[in-house]
Amino acid sequence: MTPKQQILETLRNASAPISGEQLSTQLSISRTMVWKHIQSLLDEGYDIEAIRKKGYVLNKLQEPLSENTLTPYLETETYARQLMILESCSSTQKVAKEWLVTNSFDGMLIVSEEQTEGKGRLNRSWNSTKGKGLWMSWVIKPAILPHEAPPITLVAALAIAHAIEQITTLQVDIKWPNDLLIDGKKVGGILTELQSTPEQIEAIILGIGLNVNHQQEDFEESIQKIATSLAIHHETPIYRSQLLAEIALQLEVAIRQFEKEGFAPFRERWIRHSPMIGQHVTAQTVRETIQGVAVGINEYGALLVETSQGVIPLFSGDVTLSKRKLDF
Amino acid sequence: MTPKQQILETLRNASAPISGEQLSTQLSISRTMVWKHIQSLLDEGYDIEAIRKKGYVLNKLQEPLSENTLTPYLETETYARQLMILESCSSTQKVAKEWLVTNSFDGMLIVSEEQTEGKGRLNRSWNSTKGKGLWMSWVIKPAILPHEAPPITLVAALAIAHAIEQITTLQVDIKWPNDLLIDGKKVGGILTELQSTPEQIEAIILGIGLNVNHQQEDFEESIQKIATSLAIHHETPIYRSQLLAEIALQLEVAIRQFEKEGFAPFRERWIRHSPMIGQHVTAQTVRETIQGVAVGINEYGALLVETSQGVIPLFSGDVTLSKRKLDF
Repeated sequence: MTPKQQILETLRNASAPISGEQLSTQLSISRTMVWKHIQSLLDEGYDIEAIRKKGYVLNKLQEPLSENTLTPYLETETYARQLMILESCSSTQKVAKEWLVTNSFDGMLIVSEEQTEGKGRLNRSWNSTKGKGLWMSWVIKPAILPHEAPPITLVAALAIAHAIEQITTLQVDIKWPNDLLIDGKKVGGILTELQSTPEQIEAIILGIGLNVNHQQEDFEESIQKIATSLAIHHETPIYRSQLLAEIALQLEVAIRQFEKEGFAPFRERWIRHSPMIGQHVTAQTVRETIQGVAVGINEYGALLVETSQGVIPLFSGDVTLSKRKLDF
Repeated sequence: MTPKQQILETLRNASAPISGEQLSTQLSISRTMVWKHIQSLLDEGYDIEAIRKKGYVLNKLQEPLSENTLTPYLETETYARQLMILESCSSTQKVAKEWLVTNSFDGMLIVSEEQTEGKGRLNRSWNSTKGKGLWMSWVIKPAILPHEAPPITLVAALAIAHAIEQITTLQVDIKWPNDLLIDGKKVGGILTELQSTPEQIEAIILGIGLNVNHQQEDFEESIQKIATSLAIHHETPIYRSQLLAEIALQLEVAIRQFEKEGFAPFRERWIRHSPMIGQHVTAQTVRETIQGVAVGINEYGALLVETSQGVIPLFSGDVTLSKRKLDF
């Protein structure tokens, strides 16, 4: 570790301000050098406050994502063991696709502090404010056949909900197929893109957007009523690097299990996370509108909707809670 | 049209040598200018022979692919109406994927005189000798759902066979799922790659390699016994631009029909092109080896193999004719 990295580590682990003199003694460098390293860290985007007569305090929440901040928390085998951390990009999905033209790695992570053209499902735009959330794409190559891929979105949603629940005291709901909600408002979303030949999956690109440290006013007016962040519901602030490492771990564990056992072992947990089950819903698919009660999910990840014509498995579409009660 | 293009057009349509004097009179330019334009065409790769006391003859078969050589033959609506013609590239599939990151067009054609890393199915290498064949990728966005995509390979194989049969006197066989054969030897292949979300197809990239003007000795020794070209079986040479335009047309027509009517209307024609039907075959899939008689194809494009355990639909795999006769 360079002296600069040592200073950063010391500040990161400190529970009280650390004086320049302490750092100078501990690292056996001059106080001028300590000051120079602090300046350099400030230039890199670290928020370090100098409290008069006490010392330096690192604001961990404003820490930029970096290999240095992430790696200490990482417990995965391959996930995020190759990674690209960007200041800004159009969208991490696009960067992932470009990367995939000439590269390949199961668990490649692309994360960006900001996306200028972030997209959700069906090409809907996704707000990706600088430094406030986790805007990322995972390139994975699960050992499954192309037709086995659809439930991946649900498995990923569960893994992310689980990661959030490990790091915070929050309860996250899943709205089929790809939204993460807290108190009925959207806190995150997943966009799954498959690249395959008829024989095999070349790659799945899991695009994940997660609102972490936004305040309500950070959201554009048009989405203030429907969007939320983890921080809005949580007493203590959330350290993005730690959350990202936990997401990496939970994703890896879940997708390894899915490869071996399919969606079956996830069904019960998924239903527990889905308050929509048992409710009257309206589903809009590419071809029709279906009304009925969401009664469960099948082994292919299709939402089961009980209608007057029987139970219909829904493979894709937009589902909303109906306002009126069920008639039959 | 510039004088140079006029010279090219005149040579292209000529049935006998055209003298410099004729060109000079016809275009009202000096004979020196005629000579300069001919030099410039030679530099561009055109094979123009100057026959003493007679005049210039253009060797159409050695004509490089270009928008100028292709467009006069093109009768499509959108197919090949955007195109990229390359001297050389790693593989047109890679170029197509790169192009797709920031672009979109239904019928985009990428064709290259040479591929340095051409690939067939299952990442097998594909020999793509400079100027001898048609090495290309089509980016298409058919109005079908992701799960409806699999028969696209078969539809494309039929369209290409049909295009070859329109331009030549040859009979092309199809070997399920993606090979084109003449006299039992491989003349072409198709590699289908799908990019999709669970809801919609983002793009299908049809990679097509077709051996056109190779002589037998143009093939590497390792594949001389199994590879062939159109020219080897055809009396008159084949003009690549004309063939490519016919492929564009037949692909467009076939895929438009497939969008509306599915694979059903193609089944009969496909079976007529497939001498494997009725034969005893061995099929190697990712998970098992199946022996039986190829008895047909279903509406999803799966090969139906009658085995001692009943008829098995085969969705992917390698199929070869068995040497022994069927026992049951």
